[in-house]
Amino acid sequence: MQDAHEPIRDIAHLGHVELLTPKPAESAWFFKEILGMEETDCQGQSIYLRAWGDYDHCTLKLTEAPQAGLGHVGWRTMSPQALERRARRLAELGYGKQWIEGDIGHGRAYQFEDADGHFMEIYYESQKYKAAPHMSSKLINQPQRYTGRGIGTKRIDHVNLMCSDVTLNRIFLQENLGFQLRECLQPEVDGIEEGAWLSVTPLVHDIAYTRDFTGNHGRLHHVAYWLDNREEILRAADLLIENDIFLEAGPAKHNITQAFYIYLYEPGGNRVELFSGGYLIFAPDWEPVIWRKAERGRGVYWGGTLPTSFRTYGTPVRAEPQSVQEERPLTFDPI
Amino acid sequence: MQDAHEPIRDIAHLGHVELLTPKPAESAWFFKEILGMEETDCQGQSIYLRAWGDYDHCTLKLTEAPQAGLGHVGWRTMSPQALERRARRLAELGYGKQWIEGDIGHGRAYQFEDADGHFMEIYYESQKYKAAPHMSSKLINQPQRYTGRGIGTKRIDHVNLMCSDVTLNRIFLQENLGFQLRECLQPEVDGIEEGAWLSVTPLVHDIAYTRDFTGNHGRLHHVAYWLDNREEILRAADLLIENDIFLEAGPAKHNITQAFYIYLYEPGGNRVELFSGGYLIFAPDWEPVIWRKAERGRGVYWGGTLPTSFRTYGTPVRAEPQSVQEERPLTFDPI
Amino acid sequence: MQDAHEPIRDIAHLGHVELLTPKPAESAWFFKEILGMEETDCQGQSIYLRAWGDYDHCTLKLTEAPQAGLGHVGWRTMSPQALERRARRLAELGYGKQWIEGDIGHGRAYQFEDADGHFMEIYYESQKYKAAPHMSSKLINQPQRYTGRGIGTKRIDHVNLMCSDVTLNRIFLQENLGFQLRECLQPEVDGIEEGAWLSVTPLVHDIAYTRDFTGNHGRLHHVAYWLDNREEILRAADLLIENDIFLEAGPAKHNITQAFYIYLYEPGGNRVELFSGGYLIFAPDWEPVIWRKAERGRGVYWGGTLPTSFRTYGTPVRAEPQSVQEERPLTFDPI
Amino acid sequence: MQDAHEPIRDIAHLGHVELLTPKPAESAWFFKEILGMEETDCQGQSIYLRAWGDYDHCTLKLTEAPQAGLGHVGWRTMSPQALERRARRLAELGYGKQWIEGDIGHGRAYQFEDADGHFMEIYYESQKYKAAPHMSSKLINQPQRYTGRGIGTKRIDHVNLMCSDVTLNRIFLQENLGFQLRECLQPEVDGIEEGAWLSVTPLVHDIAYTRDFTGNHGRLHHVAYWLDNREEILRAADLLIENDIFLEAGPAKHNITQAFYIYLYEPGGNRVELFSGGYLIFAPDWEPVIWRKAERGRGVYWGGTLPTSFRTYGTPVRAEPQSVQEERPLTFDPI
Repeated sequence: MQDAHEPIRDIAHLGHVELLTPKPAESAWFFKEILGMEETDCQGQSIYLRAWGDYDHCTLKLTEAPQAGLGHVGWRTMSPQALERRARRLAELGYGKQWIEGDIGHGRAYQFEDADGHFMEIYYESQKYKAAPHMSSKLINQPQRYTGRGIGTKRIDHVNLMCSDVTLNRIFLQENLGFQLRECLQPEVDGIEEGAWLSVTPLVHDIAYTRDFTGNHGRLHHVAYWLDNREEILRAADLLIENDIFLEAGPAKHNITQAFYIYLYEPGGNRVELFSGGYLIFAPDWEPVIWRKAERGRGVYWGGTLPTSFRTYGTPVRAEPQSVQEERPLTFDPI
Repeated sequence: MQDAHEPIRDIAHLGHVELLTPKPAESAWFFKEILGMEETDCQGQSIYLRAWGDYDHCTLKLTEAPQAGLGHVGWRTMSPQALERRARRLAELGYGKQWIEGDIGHGRAYQFEDADGHFMEIYYESQKYKAAPHMSSKLINQPQRYTGRGIGTKRIDHVNLMCSDVTLNRIFLQENLGFQLRECLQPEVDGIEEGAWLSVTPLVHDIAYTRDFTGNHGRLHHVAYWLDNREEILRAADLLIENDIFLEAGPAKHNITQAFYIYLYEPGGNRVELFSGGYLIFAPDWEPVIWRKAERGRGVYWGGTLPTSFRTYGTPVRAEPQSVQEERPLTFDPI
Repeated sequence: MQDAHEPIRDIAHLGHVELLTPKPAESAWFFKEILGMEETDCQGQSIYLRAWGDYDHCTLKLTEAPQAGLGHVGWRTMSPQALERRARRLAELGYGKQWIEGDIGHGRAYQFEDADGHFMEIYYESQKYKAAPHMSSKLINQPQRYTGRGIGTKRIDHVNLMCSDVTLNRIFLQENLGFQLRECLQPEVDGIEEGAWLSVTPLVHDIAYTRDFTGNHGRLHHVAYWLDNREEILRAADLLIENDIFLEAGPAKHNITQAFYIYLYEPGGNRVELFSGGYLIFAPDWEPVIWRKAERGRGVYWGGTLPTSFRTYGTPVRAEPQSVQEERPLTFDPI
Repeated sequence: MQDAHEPIRDIAHLGHVELLTPKPAESAWFFKEILGMEETDCQGQSIYLRAWGDYDHCTLKLTEAPQAGLGHVGWRTMSPQALERRARRLAELGYGKQWIEGDIGHGRAYQFEDADGHFMEIYYESQKYKAAPHMSSKLINQPQRYTGRGIGTKRIDHVNLMCSDVTLNRIFLQENLGFQLRECLQPEVDGIEEGAWLSVTPLVHDIAYTRDFTGNHGRLHHVAYWLDNREEILRAADLLIENDIFLEAGPAKHNITQAFYIYLYEPGGNRVELFSGGYLIFAPDWEPVIWRKAERGRGVYWGGTLPTSFRTYGTPVRAEPQSVQEERPLTFDPI
């Protein structure tokens, strides 16, 4: 029997993210032809997509809507019991909303909102992707053959949500869903927490909360897809530029997470990150890394900075991003 | 409370491996100057090393001995309770040997043997590495600065043990330590299992058991260290060749694990793998991938094969590896 | 005025290669969809192609024929005067055949045969590729935007011809066309020359002659296209395997030329090399590098060997290549 | 015989660059331990260095001086006759200074100044590097084994000189030394030429002239060393940051030359570029690429800009570089 004092891990991993887009056709073109993802299903105003290395039926739900933004974040649980346990707790605390019968790709799910009002859901039953013969790989341990189309992102990596109070939302995930704090941006001791990177897996973050300097609620900072190496990120930069996709920042190396990245805006307006590298955390007693102003050094590890739009631009769009010319002078580095 | 039927994860990760070497000076030179590892301690006939990205005080213990081989494998547990729980179970089943007060880098540990006679130990208390000022990185989330010395392996990845009965040992890890089977090599249905790849983490394997075709017991196939990208593996190949290290196979891509690799023999005779890429497993209900003869296709994913020494060479050395000449007959090389 | 004893460089670079294929549709699919080349023209039984980085209208002419093989090799001269000068010399020596009015992509050309009977031509007037708006790059110094389709070879690199007498053909290029010998494979002192790598540019070779161990004449060993880095070659290997293209050897590193490579057979049967790296030669007084048996060391730089088909397989096919099974016997693949 | 109207190529390649440094010990440490170059000789206040892939005895002469800056640029000719021919022409035009008996690494040389007052010399006799046994490579076509020390730059690539009148100096090289213009930065039609990239080899530039916006004369913008791939440039960035070397710009991709780069200041204050990629020019009738304001688009290909110090900072130091914070807003991209 397990000791009552021992932590129980109930959330397995980030399952999927739903993005809202006012330009469904252009967004679909971007995710399929430029990022190289596959459309596995469609229903109503939504299409369902996955990257070539995603084992699930879908990791991205793209839904037509009046404005860009986050539809919801879906978390898969470790077991049916874990799902019940967490749903019960969320309901007791008043964050819970309702049970739904499920959606394409997964079964019964419990919906709730985080402290800032982002919609989320937890579920256990998940449909695994089965490749049709023409899409199967010579590698039977690979869900699908690598097609080489576009950038060829491999799998979903993490989601970054903007919020008015990072600390409040970070604690919400730690206390109610068992997330662990990996890194934290708090410029001044006892000052405001500007960013928190958390995970239930060894990934340095499955989710991050970053401060919304415009004071809005429930906005999306970005969703990130993984590439296996930096050369693929550099190749991606060429493809993005040649296809007129706005490359907001990068390719460069983060200090927080140590990852190599590119930030871009998909045609619908949502920010997307292409992410590679970083490090894995296996220690059960990891001590969160706290970044102070001094330790941030030169904004980004290799120098240079991230544009001011990083503190203000999110979807739904409330504050317009500044022009590229104006964008460069700030030193603020959310992931 | 957790349901009695739910699996409890007690093993956190591979902590360290002890290698025995009849050539301590040459082996130390290899791990420090060629692989680029750091010596953090020494005691008796042993030196303790870690890679630049290893968070623990040491992940490799190199001990002088009459013959090369495996000293022991150390596994860190999730908690003190997990350590007690597993030690109790191992003792009850008769695999257990004894408690020791610990060693450099970790606290109280329980020693045991797997079904084939490989020495292992489990422990919870672990000493984290603290870099001296001259070794600290500008990245406070990185245990040590990247020095660029030699190949620069980043962290320990996995260990591969040879055994006379793969199935028996694989089940031992699954039933007593909670490992999950990720991939399996069983050429014929109902035939002999030639290899099993298992993990407690999302890594495709923390440990593998492969069949010892010479019928010996308790031998080491290899220990593997991670590099972040394939270019580093290609760079490593040049450094190995120029430093007269025997490069047994690779650089190439595995079908099992999908990883990019090099196999080499360190001066003491132990096989070491340099490993990068592969894939991560987050699903709590992963279905093991079973490789049959047909599915293996052409030996290695891109074609070519692994030398026959793979089935026979392990440490301690019992069957001599074929000479390089036999393994790789010279031939013509037009461009 | 230039001194009569000073060498005059009249050949500028390898302009194009014509390949013959008994499977025109499958070969066209391979060069366009898998290698990622562009079809710029077609006429009669031929289509004309170029890689995204080729500045000329076409560098590959693919012509339907009963058997695979070399159509001809086209060399561009430094000037109109150089063309006349070389045509005169070739005619005087009896190697010349005739003047033609030109072909798609280039003007008036003089045709001739090398000592082994391979067809070649020299010309000066060349048509530069002008990208249509939808194919133009944001980089005005790049002939075309990088589309990301398939492997994405960048430019033609070199051609390798099999012949019964390497020395005779090598001298033919040196004395009549001003090529310089860069590297040479002559296992025994005073023994038979098995390979010669020559160039007029700083590339380590624009052309190579390798011994045809079957004793045939006028056959093609391979044509090579360039990729900017090794990661692209590794990416290419996955795309080739997933598309059932026979990958004969590599990815690996050559000792001769130091380049990273892959050899494959296009659907029509012609061998194609994907090539990256190597070194450039700027010295006007380069001393040829001579490889003896001892200096070859282990076949290929990192070990391993090239299949025996390398000495016997060329197009037109005279000696059948050994089966993949024989070349690369299946074996066990532990990780 | 060659036609009088045909161009004669007399300059073979960039042979070496002499850098002046007020901090000889620190500069020597940087070039040897961080860039990974080898010291092959020393004399007086100078040490002579080469990169592992340089075939000559030395490509960099580092000389102690009161201020940082360019000592001289050395060009190797195609032949002894070419040397005489060019020396005669330079003397006739009044640019010539004198003949010297030579220096370590090369023979008799003729010294001259370009139109802006940069010292240069031409020579033919050059000493090839012969590796001592412990430095020789398994690859007999490689001048030295790859040691893996530091960044490991492979060979000298080009030099970039600042001048008050780009057009005047560019024409000087074209008319007197046979350089060809490859790319040119002239924001406005009939406006001032801000940069010119020229070469005698297929490299996109052996030398560049960029406008000195401070109005000074004879200053050095940077000397560049080559790395074979972009991963090595990214690895270099980490080593530079961890060793407190000021990384002024990059890693990023140039639009002019298309190369991947990093700019840094060596301890003595001279700017050094690490350069990889780009493209080769084989056409004898290359048409210079002219960049106008509109075609420059977003300063650097992937977006972002180069710091204003690019227009003002050179050695000897006359205008102090602005702080990194201020540096980013400009869009000017000299190579």
